[in-house]
Amino acid sequence: MPSELENCMEGMIKVFHRYADKDGNLNRKALRELMENELCNFLKSQRDPAAVDKIMHDLDANKDGLVNFEEFVSLVVGLSIACEQCYKVHMRKGPK
Amino acid sequence: MPSELENCMEGMIKVFHRYADKDGNLNRKALRELMENELCNFLKSQRDPAAVDKIMHDLDANKDGLVNFEEFVSLVVGLSIACEQCYKVHMRKGPK
Repeated sequence: MPSELENCMEGMIKVFHRYADKDGNLNRKALRELMENELCNFLKSQRDPAAVDKIMHDLDANKDGLVNFEEFVSLVVGLSIACEQCYKVHMRKGPK
Repeated sequence: MPSELENCMEGMIKVFHRYADKDGNLNRKALRELMENELCNFLKSQRDPAAVDKIMHDLDANKDGLVNFEEFVSLVVGLSIACEQCYKVHMRKGPK
């Protein structure tokens, strides 16, 4: 049976491929859909209506107008690291 | 309710902190425990008995003998990218 961490890794891959085309890429529209459905709390916190476009620009390291899994993971990592900082602060204060 | 992707991010943080000390670091022993419990399929595929030591050395970017969350995530990312490559090949052949 896969471990919790293995399930997380599988989850990231599955979510990505739910929105990606058959070559494993997200175009701008697909990235917007993924973020609206899967990262809506983060997207709500971004008050800039051009947030998705800016994120697309930042993620698309090879500037082909598409986001592949490797580029997508860097978004997930950035958000996870930010969340972990909050988690540590919260745990130091003690869970309620 | 958190999305599947948000659950994955939370899962990575929770698994890491199950093994980390109160400052949010894994020493060599804790990294070994985490890998044995949470990445045992990967660890089994590494026939080198010094695999964990080598991974520790590679992950510990700031060479303090400890792996923090940021360093840990780079392992998870590397494994996820490798898994995604296999997933794509598998999906092209068509799921059974």
